[in-house]
Amino acid sequence: MSSQDISGVIAPVITPFRPDLSIDAEHSIAYCRWLLSQNCGLAVFGTNSEANSLALSERLDLLEKLVEAGIDPERMMPGTGCCSIVETAELTTRAVQLGCNAVLMLPPFYYKTVSDDGLFAAYAEVIERVGDERLKIYLYHIPPVAQVPISIGLTERLLKAYPGTVVGMKDSSGDWSNTQAMLEAFPELRMFVGSEAFLLAGMRAGGVGCISASANINPDGIDALYRNWQTDGADDLQESLNRIRQAMQSRPMIPALKAVAAHYTGHAGWSRVRPPLMALSDNETASLISELEKTGFKMAVYTKGTDY
Amino acid sequence: MSSQDISGVIAPVITPFRPDLSIDAEHSIAYCRWLLSQNCGLAVFGTNSEANSLALSERLDLLEKLVEAGIDPERMMPGTGCCSIVETAELTTRAVQLGCNAVLMLPPFYYKTVSDDGLFAAYAEVIERVGDERLKIYLYHIPPVAQVPISIGLTERLLKAYPGTVVGMKDSSGDWSNTQAMLEAFPELRMFVGSEAFLLAGMRAGGVGCISASANINPDGIDALYRNWQTDGADDLQESLNRIRQAMQSRPMIPALKAVAAHYTGHAGWSRVRPPLMALSDNETASLISELEKTGFKMAVYTKGTDY
Repeated sequence: MSSQDISGVIAPVITPFRPDLSIDAEHSIAYCRWLLSQNCGLAVFGTNSEANSLALSERLDLLEKLVEAGIDPERMMPGTGCCSIVETAELTTRAVQLGCNAVLMLPPFYYKTVSDDGLFAAYAEVIERVGDERLKIYLYHIPPVAQVPISIGLTERLLKAYPGTVVGMKDSSGDWSNTQAMLEAFPELRMFVGSEAFLLAGMRAGGVGCISASANINPDGIDALYRNWQTDGADDLQESLNRIRQAMQSRPMIPALKAVAAHYTGHAGWSRVRPPLMALSDNETASLISELEKTGFKMAVYTKGTDY
Repeated sequence: MSSQDISGVIAPVITPFRPDLSIDAEHSIAYCRWLLSQNCGLAVFGTNSEANSLALSERLDLLEKLVEAGIDPERMMPGTGCCSIVETAELTTRAVQLGCNAVLMLPPFYYKTVSDDGLFAAYAEVIERVGDERLKIYLYHIPPVAQVPISIGLTERLLKAYPGTVVGMKDSSGDWSNTQAMLEAFPELRMFVGSEAFLLAGMRAGGVGCISASANINPDGIDALYRNWQTDGADDLQESLNRIRQAMQSRPMIPALKAVAAHYTGHAGWSRVRPPLMALSDNETASLISELEKTGFKMAVYTKGTDY
């Protein structure tokens, strides 16, 4: 992987579906190009990408198509954590081979109340199976969804056992005290906050950026704070981002992101989600757009060739 | 699938691993034969099978090998519920094609607090994709692990929309009041309790059997209660099973099952689990065996050709 570590604003890239719910790779390529043009990195296969609603074969296929289409793998941090170490190792290996900058790795998430010993063994087994010095892992701590947390103790053991391989974390706990404790305990840990609501606090505490749902629809706005966090206007920029985030967060996030993308880009197909998620209704979308626009928000527009 | 619905005692079949943690299919075949000889049905790829620690490709491969080896598919109810409807549909289709009696289907379990509408859509999409009249689904309600419950309302909708396809449930909630409410609400629902601790109560309330971890090590003992639940001695049989269950339940269940299998069969490799689970230590195993034997328990012995 890259000698240049990835920083800044990264989107857990939403995944466009055709009417039959298959992945629209052509649209994904166009959308990724637009995100890159907004200075936004690409965490394809994150939670907001509906990654765990995609088959492993679909993830392998889309990752290859994106790189083949010229999307810069140096700007990519695909999610590769599956329930099975076999599948996690396969997807991670492919990401390394394709030259991705790093991977974002969920712990195995089916079994609950597992021990730190067991989670350490799972990460260790994947690292050994990939067996590639280029591998860089960001631990994905998202207890509200995965229900399997990555503790400080586990992080310490992984950083010690695999320096240069386990390099960072995305903290999507929504708990600033956890982010802070991680940053204080491990100055070498490259910390991405999991929401732009914590971006300014994260940068002030030594973080390196954010990987946030809203970056899908507001990459430039969030990047503005990232670029200017040391300026006098930073708190105002943060406040402005918080108002947009608030409107999004009071809805189911993934359907809301896709509804916003559909509304502003004119690609109605964007609103499709795979079950068990459900698309917003027209009324819910109208209410969301109205609330967003009261904050002054408007998604920058991009085009793609075809719509469905 | 079969016109004869499966009933009685079914084991969520534990999965034997070689030293490199690959699946030992030969051993699995021998073990499944033994379970069948004990009048025990086969829910391969259940929670206790570490199914979600197996790759989809491994599950497809093992299922085929079992049937090719002559394991009767009429006695099989493989678990087929994955996070992705694409993978669930693929595994379910293969199970139907191989002639399995039924499938046990988890809801998609990564996203939490999803709506019943979304879960209904997920099951509906899988049923439509499989598109085979032979399909029979048992809904797998296991909120302590999946963290995605199958409500009474969802069950009602599925039974109504897919009669003859959605035929039953495994209730692993550990909450007898839920089992009872399901049985009262849906007399046509074929209910397997998720633990033999509820077997007698379940049969008395109209259930059809149990799919229980302990059936892996005590199939004949549990079958004795199933065969004799209407006799005077049934309460004593239940009490005796409960004492064995109690010893198992105070340990991590899957490592405990495998430790017991390793101890009594002499196949030391049985103790292996995939991370994030961890095998019991020698001391933990000795303490478990000692506690089990105080109840009079002893696992029936079977042999296989090779050990690892």
